[in-house]
Amino acid sequence: MGQPMKLYYCETLNPRKACAAARYLGVDVEFIRVDLARGEQRTPEFLALNPNGKVPVLTDGDLRLWEANAIMRFLSDRAGSDFWPEDARRFDITRWMSWDAAHFTRYGATIWFERLIKPLLGLHEDERIIEEACASLVVSCRIIDEHLAGRTWTVGSAVTAADFAIGAALPYADAMGFDFCQFRHLSRWYEALDRIDAWHDPFPLNLQRD
Amino acid sequence: MGQPMKLYYCETLNPRKACAAARYLGVDVEFIRVDLARGEQRTPEFLALNPNGKVPVLTDGDLRLWEANAIMRFLSDRAGSDFWPEDARRFDITRWMSWDAAHFTRYGATIWFERLIKPLLGLHEDERIIEEACASLVVSCRIIDEHLAGRTWTVGSAVTAADFAIGAALPYADAMGFDFCQFRHLSRWYEALDRIDAWHDPFPLNLQRD
Ligand SMILES: N[C@@H](CCC(=O)N[C@@H](CS)C(=O)NCC(=O)O)C(=O)O
Ligand SMILES: N[C@@H](CCC(=O)N[C@@H](CS)C(=O)NCC(=O)O)C(=O)O
Repeated sequence: MGQPMKLYYCETLNPRKACAAARYLGVDVEFIRVDLARGEQRTPEFLALNPNGKVPVLTDGDLRLWEANAIMRFLSDRAGSDFWPEDARRFDITRWMSWDAAHFTRYGATIWFERLIKPLLGLHEDERIIEEACASLVVSCRIIDEHLAGRTWTVGSAVTAADFAIGAALPYADAMGFDFCQFRHLSRWYEALDRIDAWHDPFPLNLQRD
Repeated sequence: MGQPMKLYYCETLNPRKACAAARYLGVDVEFIRVDLARGEQRTPEFLALNPNGKVPVLTDGDLRLWEANAIMRFLSDRAGSDFWPEDARRFDITRWMSWDAAHFTRYGATIWFERLIKPLLGLHEDERIIEEACASLVVSCRIIDEHLAGRTWTVGSAVTAADFAIGAALPYADAMGFDFCQFRHLSRWYEALDRIDAWHDPFPLNLQRD
C-alpha cells in the first residue's frame, strides 16, 4: 500500500465536486486545505502541483491531476464505481458536463463570484455582469428543468458526476439571491442531491489555525 | 444500413469541432446547414432537436446529440478510433476538455463573439469585456504553452479531440486581433493542427441559396 492520495481543496464551488465525490465514493484521500484568502494557491510549491493556481488538485504518487471533473472521473475509476459511467451513458455524460461548463455553472459561478467572492476580496460587484449572467442562467434553468421532468437524475437512473457538476453553484443560490424554486423539476432534483450527505457536507471540519 | 447521421452546423466556432471531427474520422454524415443569421436555430423544428437552439447537433436514428464535445466523442466511437481516447489517457482528456471549456476557449470565444459576431448582429462590442477576456486568455496561453513545450499534441503522442477543442477559437485569432505568436509552443502546435485538412477546411462548400 502506497501513500494515500492527497486532495487539495478549499470550501468553495469547484472543490466541492471533488471533495463530495471522494466522500460519496468512500475513497481514502488525505484532505489538504489551501487557504485561498491567504494566497496559498500562488506559492511555488502549489504552482508545481497546478500551474493554474487553483483548487481542487489530486495527487497520487507522481500524478498531479487538476480540474474538478477530471478528479471526479479518476476517483470513480479508483472506486470501481460507475458514478462516472463509461458505458452507453458516456455520451450523455459528456453532453451534460460540457453543457454545464459552457452554460449552467458558467453563469452560476459568475454570479457566485460577483456576489460572494468579490466582496471578500474588497472588489466591487459588477451589476451589469450579474444581470447578464442571471438572464443566461434562467435560460439554462429552463433547459435542465425540462430535461429533469419525469427523471430523478440527469443521466440514466442513478446519481452521477453530471449531477455533482450541475449542482456546483446551487448551494450558494440563496446567498447569491438567485431563486430557482420556480423551476419545479430542478428544485426537486436539487433537494434529492442535497439529501446525499457527501454532497451536503463535503468538506472536512477545520480547526481554527490561529 | 440505416439513414446516414445528420450533422447540423454553421460555419462558426463550435460546429467546427464536430464538422472537422466527422471529416477527420471519415464518418459518413449528411451536413445540414443552419442559417444562424436568419434565426433558423430558433424554429420549432430545430428546437425539437436541441432545446438550446444552438449548433452543432448530430442525429442518428432517434438520437439527438448536442454539445460539440459529445458529438466528437460519439463520432470517434462510431469510427472505432481513439481520437477520443478511452484508455489511460481518458483522465487527461477530461482534464483538458474541462480546462478548455472553463478557461481557454471560454475566453477565446468571448473575444470572438464580441469582436466578430456582435457587429454582425448590429450590437456594440464591449471593450471592457474584451479587455478582461484578453487578460484571462493570456494567462491560459501561458499554461498551455508550457504544457506543449516538448510535446507535439496536448494528450499523449497523437492528435485527439482535446486538440480540436483547444484549437476552436484560434482560426479567428487574427481577425480578433489576438496575437498568440509570442507563445512559441502553442504557435507551433497550432500550425501542426492547421496542417490537418479536416481542421483547416471543416465545412462543406455551400452554394448560394438565393
Ligand atoms: N476549472 C477549474 C476551476 C477551479 C477554480 O476556479 N477554483 C477556484 C476555487 S472555486 C480557485 O482555486 N480560485 C483561486 C484563484 O483563482 O486564485 C476546475 O473545474 O477545477
Ligand atoms: N456549448 C455548445 C455551444 C454551441 C454554440 O454556442 N453554438 C453557437 C455557434 S458557435 C450557436 O449556435 N449560436 C446560435 C445562437 O445562440 O442563437 C457546444 O459546445 O456545442
